[in-house]
Amino acid sequence: MVERRKPIPVTEAVNRVMTHAKPKESEWVTLEACDGRVLAQEIKADHDVPPFDRSPYDGFAIKSADTWGGSKDTPITLDIIEAIGAGDVALQKLASGQAIRIMTGAQLPLGADAIIMLELVKEQLTNGTPQIVIKREVTLGDNISRQGEDTKKGTVLIEKGDAITPGVKAILATFGYAKVEVVKQPRVGVLATGSELLDPDQALVPGKIRNSNAYMVMSQLKKAGAIPINLGKLADNLELSFKAVKEALDEVDVLITTGGVSVGDFDFLPVIYERLGATVLFNKIAMRPGSVTTVASLGGKILFGLSGNPSACFVGFELYAAPYLQALQGKTKKYMQRTKARLAADFPKPNPFTRFVRSRVEFEDGMVKARPVGLDKSNVVTSLAWANALTVLPGGTRGYREGDLVDLLMLDGEGSGEFDLENLSNRRVQK
Amino acid sequence: MVERRKPIPVTEAVNRVMTHAKPKESEWVTLEACDGRVLAQEIKADHDVPPFDRSPYDGFAIKSADTWGGSKDTPITLDIIEAIGAGDVALQKLASGQAIRIMTGAQLPLGADAIIMLELVKEQLTNGTPQIVIKREVTLGDNISRQGEDTKKGTVLIEKGDAITPGVKAILATFGYAKVEVVKQPRVGVLATGSELLDPDQALVPGKIRNSNAYMVMSQLKKAGAIPINLGKLADNLELSFKAVKEALDEVDVLITTGGVSVGDFDFLPVIYERLGATVLFNKIAMRPGSVTTVASLGGKILFGLSGNPSACFVGFELYAAPYLQALQGKTKKYMQRTKARLAADFPKPNPFTRFVRSRVEFEDGMVKARPVGLDKSNVVTSLAWANALTVLPGGTRGYREGDLVDLLMLDGEGSGEFDLENLSNRRVQK
Repeated sequence: MVERRKPIPVTEAVNRVMTHAKPKESEWVTLEACDGRVLAQEIKADHDVPPFDRSPYDGFAIKSADTWGGSKDTPITLDIIEAIGAGDVALQKLASGQAIRIMTGAQLPLGADAIIMLELVKEQLTNGTPQIVIKREVTLGDNISRQGEDTKKGTVLIEKGDAITPGVKAILATFGYAKVEVVKQPRVGVLATGSELLDPDQALVPGKIRNSNAYMVMSQLKKAGAIPINLGKLADNLELSFKAVKEALDEVDVLITTGGVSVGDFDFLPVIYERLGATVLFNKIAMRPGSVTTVASLGGKILFGLSGNPSACFVGFELYAAPYLQALQGKTKKYMQRTKARLAADFPKPNPFTRFVRSRVEFEDGMVKARPVGLDKSNVVTSLAWANALTVLPGGTRGYREGDLVDLLMLDGEGSGEFDLENLSNRRVQK
Repeated sequence: MVERRKPIPVTEAVNRVMTHAKPKESEWVTLEACDGRVLAQEIKADHDVPPFDRSPYDGFAIKSADTWGGSKDTPITLDIIEAIGAGDVALQKLASGQAIRIMTGAQLPLGADAIIMLELVKEQLTNGTPQIVIKREVTLGDNISRQGEDTKKGTVLIEKGDAITPGVKAILATFGYAKVEVVKQPRVGVLATGSELLDPDQALVPGKIRNSNAYMVMSQLKKAGAIPINLGKLADNLELSFKAVKEALDEVDVLITTGGVSVGDFDFLPVIYERLGATVLFNKIAMRPGSVTTVASLGGKILFGLSGNPSACFVGFELYAAPYLQALQGKTKKYMQRTKARLAADFPKPNPFTRFVRSRVEFEDGMVKARPVGLDKSNVVTSLAWANALTVLPGGTRGYREGDLVDLLMLDGEGSGEFDLENLSNRRVQK
C-alpha cells in the first residue's frame, strides 16, 4: 500500500541539485542599488592609491634640506607662500626658504619633499609676512603618502562572485564604478499546497490551519537574494494543482511548493512531476527533518518540493534551495558555513538518520556553543524564530550530552564555498 | 594654533549618544513587506497549537478498545467508513468496528481515540466493503497530537523589539498577523564634505579623489534598517555648508556628515554646530581610528560627524550611529555582539588608545579566531571589504601576538542588548 522510496545521503542530494545550477546572465545596476548583489565582474583599481603624493596630516610642505641644522637653539624660519586644502593643487612651486600650509589629503606641492605637522611648528608674522619657525631637522620624505603605495592601478581588488557589502561598496565608489555588473536575481514562485490552508487574514475554522510555510519561504528567499513571487495556495485537487504548477513554470525561474510530497492520499506532487515529464532528482533523503524533500527538473528549471511540516520545510530550503539559488546568482560562498561547537544542552534523542537540529549559536570565552531550540513542547512553536544554525548529528548515533563536540551549519554570516558533511563529530554518549 | 580637545572613553561616548535615542512611532505593514523590521507589538498565539486534536501521520482513526486482544494469530478487522485529508472534517462519528482513513494534519474524527499508521495495517475488500486488518493492540491516545499541546492560546511568543526573521514570519502567518505593527524606520541624510571629492562617475583630476564614504555609509544604513537619503557632497565653503546642513535637518530624522570634523583649516563642522546652536556631545574619543568622531544634538535630532578617513568613518558609524539608529527602531539587540577570540596573526603596533582593528571572524575546531585585515599596505584598500568584526585592543597595551586572547565585536549576526567594553583582555606580549 505504502510506496517505498530509497533514501539517498544528504551530500548526494545536494550534489544532484547543484549540478543543475548555472549562473544567470548579468545586468548593470547603479551603485546606490547594488547592496547585497553578487558581482558579475572583477573590480579593478582604475588608479593608484593614493592617486598622487599627498599629506596624511595637517601641516606644512617644505624642503627638508631647509631644516638641516635646525634645533631649539638654532630655529629655522620659512615664509608661508600659500595654503591648500584637500582637493586643491598648489599654484606655486616651492623654493628654498618657503613653506606651503597643507591640509590632510591635499596633494604635495611641486618642490616640496617633506611635511611637518602643524603641532611641531610655531607660526608668526614678520613685517606682514606669515612665517613658521621649526626647531628640529626634518627627514626627506617625512609624512608623505606616496602615490600607489597602497594599491597600483590595474590591481584586482574584488573577485567575481563576491557579494556587495558596505566595504565593497566603498571600493566600487573609489574606483569609479557608478554602475556595476551583477548577476540577475532568480524569480522564484512559491505555491503552498493543502486543503487545510487558510490565508493569514482568514479566521480559523474546524480542521484548518493558516498557511505559514509560504510566508516563511518568501522571507528565506529574500535572504538568499532571490525574488519571491507569491502564487497563493492550492487545495488538494490533482487537476487544478497540475494546471497551477504548469502555468507557474512559465512565469518563474524556479518553483517551490510546500506540502504534497509525502505518500499520503492527497500528496499529488509526485503525480504532477510525472505528468509534467519532470525528472525527479530524489524523493527521499536520509535526514530528519525533511526526509520527503523532493527535487525535480524540467526544461532547465528546478522544482523544489518542500515538506508541509514547518521545520522540515525550513531545513529543506536551507540545505537544498538556498545554495542552488545563490549559485544561480553566481555567488562563490553559496553554502552554510560549517564549524565545530560544543553542545550547550543534552540532546537525548537517538538519530537513526542524519539530524539537523534547529539551534542557536552562542559564544563563551572564545568557544562556539550550539544550543538546540525546540526540544521541549514549550518552545517547539517558536524554535524557528530563534534558530540561527543547524546542529548536524550524524545518523547511527544514540544521543548527545552537553559539552559534546558537534558540527554546526550557520544560517547567518558569509557562507562557504564548499558543502562538506564528511567526518562529522560522532562521539556517542557513554551509558 | 591647534585646538586641544579632551578625549572621552568609548563607553562614555556611546552612552552620551544613546541617552538621546527614543523609539519612533509605529506603523502597520503587510506580512509580505515586514522582513527585517522591528516589532512594535508583542506577538501572541490567537489559537491553541495544534488548534484541534489531529493526526501526525497518514493512518487510520480507530477506537483503541476495538484492538484489544489483537495479535498475529488473532487479527482484528475494521470497516473503513470514510477517508479524510488535512483540512477535512469527518462527516461520520466513529462507532465500534469502524475506522476512518486519515491523512497527516487532519482533525481526529468524533468517536476515535487513537491513530494507527498506514504501514501497520493491511487493507482488504470483503464483499465490496473496504477493511483494515490490525495484528496488534493499540493504546488509547496513540499518535494523536492534542489540541494546545505545543502552545496555548494567548501565550506571548515573540517580544516587542525583536526583528522579523523568516522564523518569526512563520509565526506571524500562523497566528493571523496579516498586518503587523512595526517601528518606523529613521530617514537619515548623508552629506559628504570636502573640496577634494568627485562623484563615482567623474574622471579623476589632480588633487581629487572620489567620494566613497557616503556610498559606504548608505550601505551601512540599509544594514542598520534605516532609510538612507543621499544629500550629495559639499565643497569646503563655510556658508554653503552651513546652509546645506541647516536645510538637511528639516528633511531627515538624523544627519550624517563625513569629513570636516578634525582641526584643519577647512574642517567646518565644529563652526557649523556652533552656529546652529547644536549641543556637541563630544568631539574627541580615546580610540583609534575615529578619534575625531563628533556627535551633536539639535532639537531632538542627532548629527553624526564621522571622519573623512574611510576606516575611521566605518568604525565611527558602527560604534555610535548603528546602535542609535537601531534604538530609534525600538530594537532590543542594538549593539554589536561581543565575544572572546584568539588572534590569528601578530598585531605588533602599540595601542596608546583603545584600538578597533578591522578583522575577520574565523572558526577553528570550535574556537573563535580574529584575523586582522589591512595590516599590510597590500590589503589596506580592501580591508573594509573583508572585515566582519572589530578586534578591540585596550589602550595602554604594547602589541599582541598570534594566539593571544582578545575581544571581538561582530558586525554581522544578531547583536546584543548591551554595550560593554569593561574587562577587555589585555594580555601584553612578553618581550
